Amino acid sequence: MFKFELLKKSRNTGGRIGRIETAHGKIDTPVFMPVGTQATVKAMMSEEMENLGAQIILSNTYHLYLRPGHEIIKELGGLHRFMNWKRPLLTDSGGYQIFSLADLRTKFTDEGVTFQSHLDGGKKHFLSPEIAIEIQEALGSDIMMVLDECTPYPADAKKARDSMELSLRWAKRSLDARKSENALFGIVQGGMHKNLREEYIDRLLEIPNSKFRTSGSDFDGFSIGGLSVGEPIPIMYEMAEICTERLPKEKPRYLMGVGTPEDLLECIDRGIDMFDCVMPTRHARNGYLFTANGDINIYNAKFAKDSKPIDESCECHTCKNYSRAYLRHLMQAKEILASRLSTLHNLHFYLDLIRHAALALGEDRYPEFKNNFLRERKENVC
Amino acid sequence: MFKFELLKKSRNTGGRIGRIETAHGKIDTPVFMPVGTQATVKAMMSEEMENLGAQIILSNTYHLYLRPGHEIIKELGGLHRFMNWKRPLLTDSGGYQIFSLADLRTKFTDEGVTFQSHLDGGKKHFLSPEIAIEIQEALGSDIMMVLDECTPYPADAKKARDSMELSLRWAKRSLDARKSENALFGIVQGGMHKNLREEYIDRLLEIPNSKFRTSGSDFDGFSIGGLSVGEPIPIMYEMAEICTERLPKEKPRYLMGVGTPEDLLECIDRGIDMFDCVMPTRHARNGYLFTANGDINIYNAKFAKDSKPIDESCECHTCKNYSRAYLRHLMQAKEILASRLSTLHNLHFYLDLIRHAALALGEDRYPEFKNNFLRERKENVC
Repeated sequence: MFKFELLKKSRNTGGRIGRIETAHGKIDTPVFMPVGTQATVKAMMSEEMENLGAQIILSNTYHLYLRPGHEIIKELGGLHRFMNWKRPLLTDSGGYQIFSLADLRTKFTDEGVTFQSHLDGGKKHFLSPEIAIEIQEALGSDIMMVLDECTPYPADAKKARDSMELSLRWAKRSLDARKSENALFGIVQGGMHKNLREEYIDRLLEIPNSKFRTSGSDFDGFSIGGLSVGEPIPIMYEMAEICTERLPKEKPRYLMGVGTPEDLLECIDRGIDMFDCVMPTRHARNGYLFTANGDINIYNAKFAKDSKPIDESCECHTCKNYSRAYLRHLMQAKEILASRLSTLHNLHFYLDLIRHAALALGEDRYPEFKNNFLRERKENVC
Repeated sequence: MFKFELLKKSRNTGGRIGRIETAHGKIDTPVFMPVGTQATVKAMMSEEMENLGAQIILSNTYHLYLRPGHEIIKELGGLHRFMNWKRPLLTDSGGYQIFSLADLRTKFTDEGVTFQSHLDGGKKHFLSPEIAIEIQEALGSDIMMVLDECTPYPADAKKARDSMELSLRWAKRSLDARKSENALFGIVQGGMHKNLREEYIDRLLEIPNSKFRTSGSDFDGFSIGGLSVGEPIPIMYEMAEICTERLPKEKPRYLMGVGTPEDLLECIDRGIDMFDCVMPTRHARNGYLFTANGDINIYNAKFAKDSKPIDESCECHTCKNYSRAYLRHLMQAKEILASRLSTLHNLHFYLDLIRHAALALGEDRYPEFKNNFLRERKENVC
């Protein structure tokens, strides 16, 4: 079950407000999706993610396929029950992980990809568009992704086109393989080539409907992939905008793996509805903390006796109860609580940022909101 | 501020019910004190420790002296504020850590001990009875320990006596050094020698009163140290009993660093009021989980598809929300949440065990309670 409703097109911005409905509840867009790679958002309990206001979590097909195995998760009632998460889940297709761990990949054909696992000592595995769907359906994902090839950066027009042709064939096969009514998103690749991005979208939309749809594209939404792979940031924004301009207005657009707080606001401005990124959680574990007044490296010696919270205006549990000095101590002592308190703060920052962005969109004051936010962070670098 | 009231001597057991009052609140005894070595019970927030019903936490002087430094903690308002823990705190003297990390110790005299830190690359530090008190007072500990030498095991009568004489001189100096009204416990050593343990207690009680007391011993309570250092378990029980029989009834007795659930029940039976041990927390992080029906190693392959909780009769948050299969997966994937869920369960088990023990003492059915518990665990080893 999947429905997307575009509620509002905000003034003086490409930004939009929407609502997704799934079997596990509604999602207000724009939305940031915290990453729970191995069936857990690192350091967090599912109940805490709910309390933070996370509406949906992303989990990684590649990791769960390898460990504990999708069959086991299916047998235990699906990923929601496994990790005690009652709200929607989105899964990637596993393709990105195989490509990004490329030295472990052994063979790559039109049929699919044969790779060696980073876990089980070189055992060979095979992933095809059909298998990627089978795994995601076994997990019980609310929003699935087609298997695609993440076009590397840089890639010339020839290379990007070859990659595109393969991913388009896989997109068709992914659609055909779907057995459930879980949502399936197409993924737009095309490298940094405007014409390829546009052609890609046109051809994705032309893929014949499968049994589950009667009109329009068979894809429930569209992901924009192959960005944030090393290209200059202005190019990323440009490519995102090229895609959102051409994608159908009535479907959600998901920018994969992006990004910084600045990226989020810029890309909401360009019509993106959904984001995921490991940045808030991974940075947290390394002591890098986000604030509206510029970011903080908590290891910095100047925080050793600092009794203030990370951010005095922040309403998160960490900021209301713990000092920078304590957090710095925990981080230096490599205490688990350091990761917990930092992750909690950074996730709160990201989720709260998007809530405020949505509010600004609703009240037609997004450009002002965005510019204020960007300026505050630039001017007050700690 | 410190007061101990012996509320009840239970029937058919040496077990007792008491109540301690401190500036940070009351403690019902018998009590188990979770260990928060570096100003955090590993993997847990202070708020969660409160919710688990922990009445008091132990923290380690040695670790906090080295990092972040007691002066910094004092400047930040003391250890309670630093770690956001509102209930009582007990600190050890730091001696045990120096002795147990013996290759790092450089020099040892009647005056004190010069040692190299395991943290700052060989920098020399000096700890004396006076400094140990100064540090604990800077931390704002509710219950402080005298500096002593932990007599190694085995130690012949000569060696144990030499160690005893030193520790007794240090006990006197610790008392003299105290500037606050925080409680100070004497520590009974004496190795595995009955006569030395008894002589030790007699001489501790004879130490002249300092300015803070007008009658009786100047120590607010007595710790039993130098046990659980490698001796056979029956010897440990015997030594604990020798001590409790001779110690004044009107003061609390604290058995340091003990132990298994079985040890706790056996030593409550012998008149111990207070315990601390890293076992529930450390074992949790290694996947070893306590249950009333025998303990579990969650790594065991038989739990891979087990949808049951760790213990079906357990009321902890972990058991009410997560399966053995999920916990095993998290543990194998080295996820932080594995440590969190396991620690939460094991601490709940320990704290709940003591609550039930206290109930049984109150209702004069302790021997039956203890025997049932021991039998259940023995018969149902998983």
